[in-house]
Amino acid sequence: MNTDLLKALVDPTSVALVGISGDETKLSARPMRFMIANGFKGKIYPVNPGRAEILGHKAYPTIALIPEPVEHAYLLVPTDAVEAALRDCAEAGVKVVSVLADGFAEAGEAGLERQARITAIAKEAGIFLIGPNSMGVVNTHNGFVCTTNAAFGASSIQKGGTAVLSQSGSIIGTLLSRGAQRGAAFSRLISLGNEAASGAGALGLALLDDPAVTSFALFLETIRDADELAEFGRRAAQAGKPVVAYTLGRSDEGKALAVSHTGALVGSQAAVTSFLTANGIRRVDLLDSFLDAPAALARTKADPNRPRKVTVVSTTGGGGAMVIDQLSLRGVEIAGCSAESRKVLSAQKIALGSGKLVDVTLAGARYDTMKAVVSTLIRDPEMGLLVVATGSSAQFNPELAVKPVIDAIAEAPEGSAPVVAIPLPHAPDSLRMMREGGVTAFASVEAGAEVLSMIMEPLRIAEGLEGQDLPAEVTALIDAAVSTGQQVLDESTSGAILRTLGVPFPQQVQLAPGEGVEKAERLRYPLVAKVVSPDLPHKSEAGAVALNIKSQEELAAAVEKIRASAQSYHPGYRDEGVLVQEMRRGVGEALVGITRDPLVGPVLTLGMGGVLAEVYGDVTVHPAPVGLPTAREMIGSIRGFAPLRGYRGAQKGDLEDLARLASTLSCLMRDPRVAEAEINPVIIGGEGEGVVAVDALIRLQQ
Amino acid sequence: MNTDLLKALVDPTSVALVGISGDETKLSARPMRFMIANGFKGKIYPVNPGRAEILGHKAYPTIALIPEPVEHAYLLVPTDAVEAALRDCAEAGVKVVSVLADGFAEAGEAGLERQARITAIAKEAGIFLIGPNSMGVVNTHNGFVCTTNAAFGASSIQKGGTAVLSQSGSIIGTLLSRGAQRGAAFSRLISLGNEAASGAGALGLALLDDPAVTSFALFLETIRDADELAEFGRRAAQAGKPVVAYTLGRSDEGKALAVSHTGALVGSQAAVTSFLTANGIRRVDLLDSFLDAPAALARTKADPNRPRKVTVVSTTGGGGAMVIDQLSLRGVEIAGCSAESRKVLSAQKIALGSGKLVDVTLAGARYDTMKAVVSTLIRDPEMGLLVVATGSSAQFNPELAVKPVIDAIAEAPEGSAPVVAIPLPHAPDSLRMMREGGVTAFASVEAGAEVLSMIMEPLRIAEGLEGQDLPAEVTALIDAAVSTGQQVLDESTSGAILRTLGVPFPQQVQLAPGEGVEKAERLRYPLVAKVVSPDLPHKSEAGAVALNIKSQEELAAAVEKIRASAQSYHPGYRDEGVLVQEMRRGVGEALVGITRDPLVGPVLTLGMGGVLAEVYGDVTVHPAPVGLPTAREMIGSIRGFAPLRGYRGAQKGDLEDLARLASTLSCLMRDPRVAEAEINPVIIGGEGEGVVAVDALIRLQQ
Repeated sequence: MNTDLLKALVDPTSVALVGISGDETKLSARPMRFMIANGFKGKIYPVNPGRAEILGHKAYPTIALIPEPVEHAYLLVPTDAVEAALRDCAEAGVKVVSVLADGFAEAGEAGLERQARITAIAKEAGIFLIGPNSMGVVNTHNGFVCTTNAAFGASSIQKGGTAVLSQSGSIIGTLLSRGAQRGAAFSRLISLGNEAASGAGALGLALLDDPAVTSFALFLETIRDADELAEFGRRAAQAGKPVVAYTLGRSDEGKALAVSHTGALVGSQAAVTSFLTANGIRRVDLLDSFLDAPAALARTKADPNRPRKVTVVSTTGGGGAMVIDQLSLRGVEIAGCSAESRKVLSAQKIALGSGKLVDVTLAGARYDTMKAVVSTLIRDPEMGLLVVATGSSAQFNPELAVKPVIDAIAEAPEGSAPVVAIPLPHAPDSLRMMREGGVTAFASVEAGAEVLSMIMEPLRIAEGLEGQDLPAEVTALIDAAVSTGQQVLDESTSGAILRTLGVPFPQQVQLAPGEGVEKAERLRYPLVAKVVSPDLPHKSEAGAVALNIKSQEELAAAVEKIRASAQSYHPGYRDEGVLVQEMRRGVGEALVGITRDPLVGPVLTLGMGGVLAEVYGDVTVHPAPVGLPTAREMIGSIRGFAPLRGYRGAQKGDLEDLARLASTLSCLMRDPRVAEAEINPVIIGGEGEGVVAVDALIRLQQ
Repeated sequence: MNTDLLKALVDPTSVALVGISGDETKLSARPMRFMIANGFKGKIYPVNPGRAEILGHKAYPTIALIPEPVEHAYLLVPTDAVEAALRDCAEAGVKVVSVLADGFAEAGEAGLERQARITAIAKEAGIFLIGPNSMGVVNTHNGFVCTTNAAFGASSIQKGGTAVLSQSGSIIGTLLSRGAQRGAAFSRLISLGNEAASGAGALGLALLDDPAVTSFALFLETIRDADELAEFGRRAAQAGKPVVAYTLGRSDEGKALAVSHTGALVGSQAAVTSFLTANGIRRVDLLDSFLDAPAALARTKADPNRPRKVTVVSTTGGGGAMVIDQLSLRGVEIAGCSAESRKVLSAQKIALGSGKLVDVTLAGARYDTMKAVVSTLIRDPEMGLLVVATGSSAQFNPELAVKPVIDAIAEAPEGSAPVVAIPLPHAPDSLRMMREGGVTAFASVEAGAEVLSMIMEPLRIAEGLEGQDLPAEVTALIDAAVSTGQQVLDESTSGAILRTLGVPFPQQVQLAPGEGVEKAERLRYPLVAKVVSPDLPHKSEAGAVALNIKSQEELAAAVEKIRASAQSYHPGYRDEGVLVQEMRRGVGEALVGITRDPLVGPVLTLGMGGVLAEVYGDVTVHPAPVGLPTAREMIGSIRGFAPLRGYRGAQKGDLEDLARLASTLSCLMRDPRVAEAEINPVIIGGEGEGVVAVDALIRLQQ
């Protein structure tokens, strides 16, 4: 734990505001106004050569003239003045510097160079640099509201536990104002800007041991520091501090915009989502959920000793049904009341309706009834998590809607089931009472349902496969391929590398140019024959492939014919012989590929073969390499493999061997020279019959 | 327009509260308390034999003793007393009666009978009956707050234009309180209860000409009056009064619950959605959208003379990108700024960023800049609809965020582009100012995006095909089938009916039992032969089908063989001969079916053939019969037909002929004796080659 950094970042003894305007109404005067208004106890040093004093504080012409060490500086100077100001900070030994100006990486070639220069200055000086293009850093607990975002001029800023790390500066204001309105409050809010030197991952790691931070909310337009972000996600999960991400660019238009807006690279949204999940970071859909989820996940956890099911109790049939509908649409399993609890409550003359909703009806909106129901249900070992969906009593009679719930929980023994509240009407008093009583409560049905689906779903941190090396023989084959200068390796070279790695191919022999077919005798018919040549990338078109060869005679004829076809298609083609393979027919086909996503790095892609997989988008992506358990999960998520899982009595396929192949292929990404590889199709045999790669291709980095 | 009914429903001269408690704190005293509190000017007659006076009004022992005619009565008596009270109303000539008690259709056999009895009483007396299980009727404009829902005890009830019709009584309170919080207000709110005599459709029709009603919000747990609802939807569309529905039962759990909660039938959610859309009723996903959509759709309409595209202008890059992301995810087409407008604004030194977001940045959050931008863009003929996504200025400086927009609109000429506002922060003042200035404004990004997608999407009211009869020959064939007492018609009978209707089948001949194969000579090879017999429902299993017959010799042998197989599979089977058909190979397959949905009636289902269509849920449903345009749209929505549309160079299929077949089949639903019919597969030939039905089956009603 770097306590010096943490202190300088969010609780500095002294802060310099470099380039602050003397006009208090200007944007650059905001951080100073906000810190004074919120009672920040550290020293504030305005730096402005034209003024002797700003907002009652002595102003300094340069940071060098400040008489004591400065821990934190916010550079409010124009773009052109940032470099010089940063050098001044370096000389003055400032630990953390945030930079407001834009005109860096998002502004073309010149901006990129400018950004590289300030990054180098910061690195050399050991400065922790935030931005450029950053609206600053806020600590709500100590009045360190060092931001240019207007929203922090609010009359009071609530203190909470969630740390916000946002690539968009305006969004920290949106979150603050919307959060205040629905009871979500924050501990720290940091505008990351261009993340020149420190991104969401670095800031997350810096705040991880901050005792005031109990959860994280990341607003991401792109990913610039995948490795640190992954480390942060995994360490936060270990520390029990939930991390929730809202990502822009879910639509194509949004993606294009993120690129033009931030100067970021284009990645695949599926890869980003998978990357986040694999590293313990939960992605959220609704903005309201983004506000509610971090604190809710920190406060309410599914009990691993209880069923992963939710039971809804309600005084309003329609409202309760709405909650169940929304939960169920998000994949949350719903349970009704157990027979045992039903018996206990029926003995107290409390009816619960039929069906899965525990419907106490309007008649049950009484203190005694609600308390008895909640007390009984949370003690029930069959109960997973209880949702109390309250009707109009939540609006006008919180003492009927809220108090019995809080009292029942207070009196319940350790290990009782967790409880969450979703009032149906607008009921701010009930929400506040619930939260003060330690119960997670949601202001909206959809956000409540989305966050509950996150609470009920265990984190799926992917098994780490780091540290293993590729077999030396594989590396040697890649060495050889690199030395030939080829970028796209031909089928035979690709096949040799993958075969050595352990990817199963059909039995085959390669006939030398002009060689007879005798060597192919040990293969089982039917066979396939193809001419091998770097000059024939499209073999079928060239007539250089023969299928379904059933005898040695047919083979001899076929080889003669495809050699002739190749010759007439590409006279003088470089002849590297003819590849003869056993022809395999399976019960299905898959495609398996590895590539490097520009945002999150190596990923494995897996899907059903054929054009329909593309039409339905039925492919899955995961950071590579993957272990067998992850490969199995990926295969399980492909809907088009339903027949191979025996759907409607279809013949099952050997999906276990497909998982093995996928995991094996994914390990090839350990060699940084490999840009991508694809096996398409993989023929999937029946259960226990294995899979084989048919066509394979490796592309090396340029 | 039934003005008498409308008046008695929402503006009665006199209302009786039958069974009101003398204890003012009880639920049944609420309607009276609420009406007094809200200044209702009509006469209120409490009916309670045990009290001389209630809440300052003289009480009557029975409705018969009230000295003047009663227009509207709310029966607050227990279940067992409803019948007698309703008879009293009938004798007293009451026009509209709503009933609070439960214990009717939702309560098993006895409840169903009870409900049938009160429905009959109402019908005979010409009473417009609401409920039972109804929380009453509210008119916010005249203080007629005749409801037992606690939410209406709010200190003030806002007046709006939207009429709420809700099958859930508690939901009218949820909508009232949540609406008040976000600025959505209502004109009428009616709790429909069990809809014994009048459902959402009947009430909608009753309110359609109410000048205070400008839009409708339907909360539906089921559909009980499909025909009236369809009529209401179509007439409301003609009248330009938008109708928006929120439906429960979108998930399987929710559906099961709606059934147990309301005693309703199980329908298909896809059929319900299609039924609503086909009749001009828009279905909404989010509860917030449900609150915002009716008024927004009434106020803001896409201009048919402008492109169906949305342009977003923002002072906050991250926030604007969020809005574009959400719009784009919902299928709204996004346009950037036209070159022309860019030139105009650039001459005023206003930069708009690159990319599709018109990003005026924080520097543009000034009155002059915002007004110039909005003025220019809404005059631009290339502009579809302009969304102003305001950042923090909306929270603290509405005069900068709102006023320039309102002023720009006020000064713009007739026919300028419509404008919608979505402030990013919580900004109630900006929202109010916008709405008061006539601009639709949304409190949340997701609801705004969903409602905008509804504004931009034209209503797709399906062409009506009523009034046409089936050809007499088809009806005669069905007559004959009915007379045989069969419920599932055999292939030959089903085929004959469909062929006569105009469904194309392969050329075929039927050989009589024992007959030779000469008659088949006029068919083109290859052929298929199948034994026809009511005793062989699974012909393949019985070996009674032969495929790919290539010559007359082969045909003779095949016929002999399948007759023998049938005989050994089912000795003494009823032999109706052998059907010989041309065997057709197409470029794809479809399944087309018609059935009767228990909620919305006859529907056509269409999808790709095969098990994957089922796995991917790639089928579409529409109320039947359908015309060619609808059939084409249905086919266009099937993703799996992408190859048949030429995707990736695949051979195109004759989808136009498939549309013809689907429309033709759907007309069979005109005969009420047909329960369902399915053609599976339909073989789809290449473009211009037509389609043919291969296997077909008709089931008649029991």
